[in-house]
Amino acid sequence: MKILITAGGTSEPIDDVRKITNTSTGSLGLAIGNAFLENHRDVIEKIYYLHGEKAAYPVDELVTPVKIGGTMDLLWEMERILESEKIDAVVHAMAVSDYMVDEVTTKRALLNGERSPFVSDTKISSKIDDLVICLTRTPKVINTIKKISPDTRLVGFKLLSSVPHEELMRVAQGVMDANDCEFVLANDLSEIGDGKHKGYLLHRDGSYDTMETKQEIAEMIAKRLTE
Amino acid sequence: MKILITAGGTSEPIDDVRKITNTSTGSLGLAIGNAFLENHRDVIEKIYYLHGEKAAYPVDELVTPVKIGGTMDLLWEMERILESEKIDAVVHAMAVSDYMVDEVTTKRALLNGERSPFVSDTKISSKIDDLVICLTRTPKVINTIKKISPDTRLVGFKLLSSVPHEELMRVAQGVMDANDCEFVLANDLSEIGDGKHKGYLLHRDGSYDTMETKQEIAEMIAKRLTE
Repeated sequence: MKILITAGGTSEPIDDVRKITNTSTGSLGLAIGNAFLENHRDVIEKIYYLHGEKAAYPVDELVTPVKIGGTMDLLWEMERILESEKIDAVVHAMAVSDYMVDEVTTKRALLNGERSPFVSDTKISSKIDDLVICLTRTPKVINTIKKISPDTRLVGFKLLSSVPHEELMRVAQGVMDANDCEFVLANDLSEIGDGKHKGYLLHRDGSYDTMETKQEIAEMIAKRLTE
Repeated sequence: MKILITAGGTSEPIDDVRKITNTSTGSLGLAIGNAFLENHRDVIEKIYYLHGEKAAYPVDELVTPVKIGGTMDLLWEMERILESEKIDAVVHAMAVSDYMVDEVTTKRALLNGERSPFVSDTKISSKIDDLVICLTRTPKVINTIKKISPDTRLVGFKLLSSVPHEELMRVAQGVMDANDCEFVLANDLSEIGDGKHKGYLLHRDGSYDTMETKQEIAEMIAKRLTE
Protein backbone atom coordinates (compact mmCIF):
# COMPACT_ATOMS: atom_id res chain seq x y z
CA MET A 1 0.00 0.00 0.00
CA LYS A 2 0.98 3.63 -0.54
CA ILE A 3 0.74 5.91 2.46
CA LEU A 4 1.00 9.65 2.91
CA ILE A 5 1.98 10.91 6.37
CA THR A 6 2.08 14.57 7.35
CA ALA A 7 4.08 15.48 10.46
CA GLY A 8 5.56 18.39 12.36
CA GLY A 9 4.23 21.91 12.07
CA THR A 10 3.63 24.40 9.30
CA SER A 11 5.34 27.78 9.54
CA GLU A 12 3.59 30.91 8.31
CA PRO A 13 5.88 33.77 7.26
CA ILE A 14 5.43 37.20 8.88
CA ASP A 15 8.31 38.74 6.96
CA ASP A 16 11.72 37.72 5.60
CA VAL A 17 12.96 36.31 8.90
CA ARG A 18 9.99 36.04 11.28
CA LYS A 19 7.31 33.41 11.20
CA ILE A 20 4.49 31.90 13.19
CA THR A 21 5.09 28.29 14.08
CA ASN A 22 3.71 25.84 16.59
CA THR A 23 5.19 23.62 19.23
CA SER A 24 4.82 20.43 17.21
CA THR A 25 8.11 18.53 17.05
CA GLY A 26 6.92 15.90 14.60
CA SER A 27 7.90 13.09 16.95
CA LEU A 28 4.46 11.42 16.84
CA GLY A 29 4.50 11.44 13.02
CA LEU A 30 8.00 9.99 13.07
CA ALA A 31 6.86 7.21 15.42
CA ILE A 32 3.96 6.44 13.06
CA GLY A 33 6.28 6.31 10.04
CA ASN A 34 8.61 3.97 11.89
CA ALA A 35 5.73 1.77 13.07
CA PHE A 36 4.70 1.19 9.44
CA LEU A 37 8.29 0.54 8.36
CA GLU A 38 9.15 -1.79 11.22
CA ASN A 39 5.96 -3.73 11.89
CA HIS A 40 4.19 -3.69 8.53
CA ARG A 41 7.03 -3.40 6.04
CA ASP A 42 5.75 -6.34 3.96
CA VAL A 43 2.61 -4.42 2.91
CA ILE A 44 4.21 -0.97 2.40
CA GLU A 45 5.11 0.04 -1.13
CA LYS A 46 5.85 3.71 -0.54
CA ILE A 47 5.46 6.41 2.14
CA TYR A 48 5.21 10.06 1.17
CA TYR A 49 6.34 11.94 4.26
CA LEU A 50 5.34 15.63 4.27
CA HIS A 51 7.16 17.24 7.18
CA GLY A 52 7.59 20.66 8.77
CA GLU A 53 10.87 22.48 8.23
CA LYS A 54 12.47 21.34 11.47
CA ALA A 55 10.78 17.95 11.85
CA ALA A 56 12.78 14.77 11.38
CA TYR A 57 11.65 12.12 8.87
CA PRO A 58 12.37 8.39 8.61
CA VAL A 59 15.42 7.82 6.42
CA ASP A 60 14.42 4.74 4.44
CA GLU A 61 14.34 3.64 0.80
CA LEU A 62 10.54 3.38 1.01
CA VAL A 63 10.15 6.98 2.24
CA THR A 64 9.92 10.07 0.02
CA PRO A 65 10.36 13.11 2.28
CA VAL A 66 8.76 16.42 1.21
CA LYS A 67 9.63 19.56 3.18
CA ILE A 68 6.65 21.83 3.89
CA GLY A 69 6.66 25.55 4.71
CA GLY A 70 3.28 27.22 5.11
CA THR A 71 -0.25 25.83 4.88
CA MET A 72 -0.64 26.79 1.20
CA ASP A 73 2.55 24.83 0.50
CA LEU A 74 1.08 21.77 2.26
CA LEU A 75 -2.18 22.09 0.34
CA TRP A 76 -0.35 22.26 -2.96
CA GLU A 77 1.89 19.25 -2.28
CA MET A 78 -1.02 17.18 -0.94
CA GLU A 79 -3.12 17.93 -4.04
CA ARG A 80 -0.20 17.21 -6.35
CA ILE A 81 0.41 13.75 -4.84
CA LEU A 82 -3.25 12.72 -4.47
CA GLU A 83 -3.99 13.74 -8.04
CA SER A 84 -1.02 11.92 -9.54
CA GLU A 85 -1.32 8.49 -7.91
CA LYS A 86 -3.55 6.29 -5.81
CA ILE A 87 -2.77 6.75 -2.11
CA ASP A 88 -4.32 4.07 0.13
CA ALA A 89 -4.16 5.98 3.39
CA VAL A 90 -3.39 9.48 4.64
CA VAL A 91 -2.24 9.96 8.26
CA HIS A 92 -2.60 13.68 8.72
CA ALA A 93 -0.63 14.27 11.93
CA MET A 94 0.77 17.66 10.95
CA ALA A 95 -0.09 20.59 13.17
CA VAL A 96 -1.45 22.84 10.44
CA SER A 97 -1.69 26.49 11.33
CA ASP A 98 -5.29 27.65 11.66
CA TYR A 99 -4.15 31.13 10.68
CA MET A 100 -1.83 32.74 8.20
CA VAL A 101 -0.68 36.33 8.02
CA ASP A 102 -3.07 38.65 6.25
CA GLU A 103 -1.31 41.94 6.96
CA VAL A 104 1.39 43.36 9.21
CA THR A 105 0.57 46.91 10.23
CA THR A 106 0.52 49.24 13.22
CA LYS A 107 -2.24 49.74 15.75
CA ARG A 108 -2.37 53.41 14.77
CA ALA A 109 -2.87 52.64 11.05
CA LEU A 110 -5.52 50.06 11.93
CA LEU A 111 -7.46 52.40 14.21
CA ASN A 112 -7.24 55.24 11.66
CA GLY A 113 -8.33 52.99 8.79
CA GLU A 114 -5.02 53.62 7.02
CA ARG A 115 -3.02 51.19 4.90
CA SER A 116 -0.09 49.29 6.40
CA PRO A 117 3.14 51.33 6.36
CA PHE A 118 5.13 48.15 5.61
CA VAL A 119 6.10 46.53 2.33
CA SER A 120 5.67 42.77 2.49
CA ASP A 121 8.55 40.34 1.89
CA THR A 122 11.21 42.43 3.58
CA LYS A 123 12.36 42.41 7.19
CA ILE A 124 10.20 44.74 9.27
CA SER A 125 12.07 47.33 11.31
CA SER A 126 12.76 46.41 14.90
CA LYS A 127 11.68 49.83 16.18
CA ILE A 128 7.90 49.86 15.79
CA ASP A 129 6.10 50.51 19.05
CA ASP A 130 2.65 49.31 18.05
CA LEU A 131 3.20 46.50 15.59
CA VAL A 132 0.12 44.43 14.86
CA ILE A 133 -0.21 41.20 12.91
CA CYS A 134 -3.65 40.63 11.35
CA LEU A 135 -4.36 36.99 10.64
CA THR A 136 -6.75 35.22 8.32
CA ARG A 137 -7.94 31.63 8.50
CA THR A 138 -6.11 29.04 6.42
CA PRO A 139 -7.98 26.66 4.11
CA LYS A 140 -8.73 23.31 5.75
CA VAL A 141 -6.25 20.95 4.07
CA ILE A 142 -7.86 17.86 5.61
CA ASN A 143 -11.11 18.81 3.92
CA THR A 144 -9.65 18.40 0.42
CA ILE A 145 -8.31 14.85 0.87
CA LYS A 146 -11.52 12.87 0.35
CA LYS A 147 -12.72 15.34 -2.25
CA ILE A 148 -9.73 14.50 -4.45
CA SER A 149 -9.45 10.84 -3.49
CA PRO A 150 -12.68 9.39 -2.01
CA ASP A 151 -11.27 5.86 -1.57
CA THR A 152 -8.24 6.93 0.48
CA ARG A 153 -8.58 6.01 4.15
CA LEU A 154 -7.99 9.01 6.33
CA VAL A 155 -6.74 9.44 9.91
CA GLY A 156 -7.41 12.92 11.24
CA PHE A 157 -5.84 14.38 14.39
CA LYS A 158 -7.26 16.72 16.97
CA LEU A 159 -5.19 18.28 19.73
CA LEU A 160 -6.99 20.31 22.37
CA SER A 161 -5.76 21.83 25.60
CA SER A 162 -7.20 21.01 29.04
CA VAL A 163 -10.76 20.15 28.05
CA PRO A 164 -12.97 17.48 29.66
CA HIS A 165 -12.67 14.05 28.02
CA GLU A 166 -16.25 14.13 26.74
CA GLU A 167 -15.61 17.43 24.96
CA LEU A 168 -12.39 16.10 23.41
CA MET A 169 -14.23 13.09 22.00
CA ARG A 170 -17.13 15.23 20.82
CA VAL A 171 -14.78 17.56 18.95
CA ALA A 172 -12.95 14.55 17.48
CA GLN A 173 -16.30 13.19 16.25
CA GLY A 174 -16.91 16.58 14.63
CA VAL A 175 -13.55 16.34 12.80
CA MET A 176 -14.51 12.84 11.63
CA ASP A 177 -17.90 13.95 10.33
CA ALA A 178 -16.66 17.14 8.67
CA ASN A 179 -13.81 15.46 6.79
CA ASP A 180 -15.07 11.93 6.24
CA CYS A 181 -12.25 10.37 8.29
CA GLU A 182 -12.05 6.63 9.00
CA PHE A 183 -10.27 7.38 12.30
CA VAL A 184 -9.51 10.44 14.40
CA LEU A 185 -6.71 10.52 16.95
CA ALA A 186 -7.83 12.76 19.81
CA ASN A 187 -5.33 14.06 22.33
CA ASP A 188 -5.04 16.78 24.95
CA LEU A 189 -1.92 18.79 25.80
CA SER A 190 -2.60 18.26 29.51
CA GLU A 191 -2.15 14.50 28.99
CA ILE A 192 1.16 14.79 27.12
CA GLY A 193 4.63 15.06 28.64
CA ASP A 194 7.40 13.20 30.48
CA GLY A 195 7.31 10.22 28.13
CA LYS A 196 3.54 9.95 28.44
CA HIS A 197 1.22 10.69 25.53
CA LYS A 198 -2.38 9.72 26.04
CA GLY A 199 -4.27 9.19 22.79
CA TYR A 200 -7.76 8.08 21.82
CA LEU A 201 -8.22 6.62 18.33
CA LEU A 202 -11.87 7.17 17.49
CA HIS A 203 -13.54 4.72 15.09
CA ARG A 204 -16.54 5.38 12.87
CA ASP A 205 -18.83 3.38 15.15
CA GLY A 206 -18.02 5.72 18.03
CA SER A 207 -15.78 3.26 19.88
CA TYR A 208 -12.16 4.17 20.51
CA ASP A 209 -8.78 2.66 21.35
CA THR A 210 -6.93 4.20 24.29
CA MET A 211 -3.14 4.45 24.24
CA GLU A 212 -0.62 5.74 26.79
CA THR A 213 2.52 6.59 24.76
CA LYS A 214 3.51 7.89 21.31
CA GLN A 215 4.79 4.40 20.53
CA GLU A 216 1.45 2.82 21.39
CA ILE A 217 -0.42 5.46 19.36
CA ALA A 218 1.87 4.89 16.38
CA GLU A 219 1.51 1.12 16.51
CA MET A 220 -2.27 1.29 16.87
CA ILE A 221 -2.65 3.60 13.85
CA ALA A 222 -0.37 1.41 11.72
CA LYS A 223 -2.30 -1.70 12.86
CA ARG A 224 -5.75 -0.24 12.18
CA LEU A 225 -4.78 0.91 8.69
CA THR A 226 -3.18 -2.39 7.68
CA GLU A 227 -5.63 -4.88 9.20
CA MET B 1 39.13 31.85 29.09
CA LYS B 2 35.41 31.50 29.71
CA ILE B 3 33.12 32.25 26.79
CA LEU B 4 29.38 32.66 26.45
CA ILE B 5 27.86 32.05 23.02
CA THR B 6 24.22 32.63 22.14
CA ALA B 7 22.90 30.94 19.00
CA GLY B 8 19.71 30.08 17.15
CA GLY B 9 16.49 31.98 17.60
CA THR B 10 14.23 32.90 20.48
CA SER B 11 10.59 31.85 20.30
CA GLU B 12 7.86 34.08 21.69
CA PRO B 13 4.68 32.29 22.77
CA ILE B 14 1.34 33.40 21.29
CA ASP B 15 -0.63 30.78 23.19
CA ASP B 16 -0.21 27.21 24.41
CA VAL B 17 0.87 25.86 21.03
CA ARG B 18 1.59 28.81 18.73
CA LYS B 19 4.66 30.97 18.79
CA ILE B 20 6.58 33.55 16.83
CA THR B 21 10.01 32.36 15.79
CA ASN B 22 12.58 33.38 13.23
CA THR B 23 14.43 31.61 10.48
CA SER B 24 17.69 31.33 12.40
CA THR B 25 18.99 27.76 12.40
CA GLY B 26 21.87 28.39 14.78
CA SER B 27 24.41 27.02 12.31
CA LEU B 28 26.65 30.11 12.48
CA GLY B 29 26.73 29.92 16.29
CA LEU B 30 27.54 26.23 16.08
CA ALA B 31 30.41 26.95 13.69
CA ILE B 32 31.75 29.58 16.12
CA GLY B 33 31.54 27.17 19.05
CA ASN B 34 33.38 24.53 17.05
CA ALA B 35 36.04 27.03 15.89
CA PHE B 36 36.88 27.80 19.54
CA LEU B 37 36.90 24.12 20.47
CA GLU B 38 38.97 22.98 17.51
CA ASN B 39 41.42 25.81 16.89
CA HIS B 40 41.79 27.43 20.32
CA ARG B 41 41.06 24.59 22.70
CA ASP B 42 44.23 25.24 24.71
CA VAL B 43 42.94 28.62 25.93
CA ILE B 44 39.29 27.63 26.51
CA GLU B 45 38.22 26.79 30.03
CA LYS B 46 34.46 26.74 29.54
CA ILE B 47 31.80 27.69 26.98
CA TYR B 48 28.28 28.53 28.06
CA TYR B 49 26.14 27.86 25.01
CA LEU B 50 22.70 29.50 25.15
CA HIS B 51 20.71 28.12 22.23
CA GLY B 52 17.23 28.35 20.75
CA GLU B 53 14.86 25.43 21.22
CA LYS B 54 15.60 23.77 17.89
CA ALA B 55 19.23 24.85 17.48
CA ALA B 56 22.02 22.30 17.77
CA TYR B 57 24.91 22.85 20.23
CA PRO B 58 28.45 21.49 20.35
CA VAL B 59 28.56 18.31 22.42
CA ASP B 60 31.82 18.68 24.31
CA GLU B 61 33.01 18.42 27.91
CA LEU B 62 33.92 22.13 27.82
CA VAL B 63 30.41 23.18 26.73
CA THR B 64 27.47 23.87 29.07
CA PRO B 65 24.34 24.05 26.90
CA VAL B 66 21.39 26.15 28.13
CA LYS B 67 18.09 25.92 26.24
CA ILE B 68 16.36 29.28 25.70
CA GLY B 69 12.68 29.96 24.99
CA GLY B 70 11.62 33.60 24.75
CA THR B 71 13.63 36.80 25.04
CA MET B 72 12.87 37.23 28.75
CA ASP B 73 14.24 33.73 29.32
CA LEU B 74 17.46 34.71 27.50
CA LEU B 75 17.78 37.88 29.53
CA TRP B 76 17.37 35.99 32.79
CA GLU B 77 19.93 33.29 31.92
CA MET B 78 22.43 35.84 30.62
CA GLU B 79 22.17 37.91 33.81
CA ARG B 80 22.42 34.82 36.01
CA ILE B 81 25.67 33.67 34.37
CA LEU B 82 27.32 37.11 34.08
CA GLU B 83 26.54 37.89 37.70
CA SER B 84 27.86 34.61 39.05
CA GLU B 85 31.24 34.35 37.31
CA LYS B 86 33.73 36.25 35.20
CA ILE B 87 33.06 35.68 31.49
CA ASP B 88 35.89 36.81 29.22
CA ALA B 89 33.89 37.11 26.03
CA VAL B 90 30.28 37.00 24.87
CA VAL B 91 29.50 36.11 21.25
CA HIS B 92 25.89 37.12 20.91
CA ALA B 93 24.89 35.43 17.64
CA MET B 94 21.33 34.60 18.70
CA ALA B 95 18.53 36.05 16.61
CA VAL B 96 16.62 37.67 19.46
CA SER B 97 13.04 38.58 18.69
CA ASP B 98 12.53 42.34 18.51
CA TYR B 99 8.95 41.81 19.57
CA MET B 100 7.01 39.73 22.02
CA VAL B 101 3.28 39.23 22.29
CA ASP B 102 1.47 41.92 24.21
CA GLU B 103 -2.09 40.80 23.57
CA VAL B 104 -4.03 38.48 21.29
CA THR B 105 -7.40 39.95 20.43
CA THR B 106 -9.77 40.51 17.49
CA LYS B 107 -9.84 43.39 15.05
CA ARG B 108 -13.39 44.13 16.17
CA ALA B 109 -12.45 44.37 19.86
CA LEU B 110 -9.48 46.55 18.98
CA LEU B 111 -11.51 48.95 16.84
CA ASN B 112 -14.26 49.13 19.47
CA GLY B 113 -11.79 49.70 22.30
CA GLU B 114 -12.93 46.49 24.01
CA ARG B 115 -10.84 44.04 26.00
CA SER B 116 -9.53 40.89 24.33
CA PRO B 117 -12.08 38.07 24.37
CA PHE B 118 -9.30 35.52 24.96
CA VAL B 119 -7.78 34.15 28.12
CA SER B 120 -4.00 33.93 27.84
CA ASP B 121 -2.09 30.65 28.29
CA THR B 122 -4.69 28.48 26.60
CA LYS B 123 -4.99 27.46 22.97
CA ILE B 124 -6.96 30.06 21.06
CA SER B 125 -9.92 28.77 19.05
CA SER B 126 -9.23 28.05 15.40
CA LYS B 127 -12.44 29.75 14.28
CA ILE B 128 -11.78 33.47 14.76
CA ASP B 129 -12.20 35.46 11.56
CA ASP B 130 -10.37 38.61 12.62
CA LEU B 131 -7.63 37.48 14.97
CA VAL B 132 -5.03 40.12 15.72
CA ILE B 133 -1.72 39.80 17.57
CA CYS B 134 -0.52 43.01 19.20
CA LEU B 135 3.21 43.06 19.81
CA THR B 136 5.45 45.01 22.12
CA ARG B 137 9.20 45.55 21.86
CA THR B 138 11.46 43.21 23.80
CA PRO B 139 14.20 44.54 26.09
CA LYS B 140 17.59 44.75 24.36
CA VAL B 141 19.51 41.84 25.90
CA ILE B 142 22.80 42.92 24.32
CA ASN B 143 22.49 46.23 26.14
CA THR B 144 22.72 44.59 29.56
CA ILE B 145 25.96 42.66 28.97
CA LYS B 146 28.50 45.44 29.53
CA LYS B 147 26.34 46.98 32.26
CA ILE B 148 26.71 43.80 34.32
CA SER B 149 30.23 42.92 33.23
CA PRO B 150 32.19 45.90 31.80
CA ASP B 151 35.40 43.90 31.21
CA THR B 152 33.77 41.20 29.10
CA ARG B 153 34.63 41.49 25.42
CA LEU B 154 31.51 41.53 23.31
CA VAL B 155 30.76 40.51 19.73
CA GLY B 156 27.41 41.82 18.51
CA PHE B 157 25.62 40.67 15.37
CA LYS B 158 23.50 42.57 12.91
CA LEU B 159 21.53 40.92 10.14
CA LEU B 160 19.77 43.14 7.63
CA SER B 161 17.98 42.32 4.41
CA SER B 162 18.94 43.72 1.00
CA VAL B 163 20.45 47.05 2.06
CA PRO B 164 23.43 48.83 0.44
CA HIS B 165 26.80 47.85 1.96
CA GLU B 166 27.37 51.34 3.38
CA GLU B 167 24.05 51.23 5.22
CA LEU B 168 24.84 47.76 6.62
CA MET B 169 28.16 48.98 8.01
CA ARG B 170 26.62 52.19 9.36
CA VAL B 171 23.94 50.20 11.21
CA ALA B 172 26.64 47.82 12.52
CA GLN B 173 28.60 50.82 13.82
CA GLY B 174 25.42 51.95 15.56
CA VAL B 175 25.10 48.54 17.26
CA MET B 176 28.74 48.81 18.37
CA ASP B 177 28.29 52.31 19.82
CA ALA B 178 24.98 51.58 21.53
CA ASN B 179 26.17 48.41 23.25
CA ASP B 180 29.88 49.01 23.75
CA CYS B 181 30.87 46.04 21.55
CA GLU B 182 34.49 45.21 20.71
CA PHE B 183 33.35 43.72 17.39
CA VAL B 184 30.14 43.57 15.36
CA LEU B 185 29.51 40.93 12.72
CA ALA B 186 27.42 42.54 9.98
CA ASN B 187 25.66 40.42 7.40
CA ASP B 188 22.85 40.71 4.87
CA LEU B 189 20.29 38.02 3.97
CA SER B 190 20.84 38.74 0.28
CA GLU B 191 24.47 37.63 0.67
CA ILE B 192 23.66 34.34 2.44
CA GLY B 193 22.74 31.04 0.79
CA ASP B 194 24.04 28.05 -1.18
CA GLY B 195 27.06 27.53 1.04
CA LYS B 196 27.96 31.21 0.86
CA HIS B 197 27.72 33.51 3.90
CA LYS B 198 29.28 36.90 3.46
CA GLY B 199 30.22 38.54 6.75
CA TYR B 200 31.97 41.73 7.81
CA LEU B 201 33.59 41.80 11.25
CA LEU B 202 33.70 45.45 12.23
CA HIS B 203 36.48 46.58 14.60
CA ARG B 204 36.43 49.58 16.93
CA ASP B 205 38.72 51.57 14.67
CA GLY B 206 36.20 51.30 11.83
CA SER B 207 38.17 48.72 9.85
CA TYR B 208 36.63 45.33 9.12
CA ASP B 209 37.51 41.77 8.13
CA THR B 210 35.58 40.33 5.17
CA MET B 211 34.66 36.65 5.12
CA GLU B 212 32.90 34.51 2.51
CA THR B 213 31.56 31.49 4.46
CA LYS B 214 30.20 30.59 7.91
CA GLN B 215 33.42 28.69 8.54
CA GLU B 216 35.55 31.75 7.75
CA ILE B 217 33.34 33.97 9.92
CA ALA B 218 33.56 31.49 12.80
CA GLU B 219 37.33 31.20 12.58
CA MET B 220 37.81 34.97 12.34
CA ILE B 221 35.69 35.62 15.44
CA ALA B 222 37.51 32.92 17.42
CA LYS B 223 40.86 34.29 16.26
CA ARG B 224 40.06 37.94 17.09
CA LEU B 225 38.84 37.04 20.59
CA THR B 226 41.84 34.86 21.43
CA GLU B 227 44.66 36.91 19.91
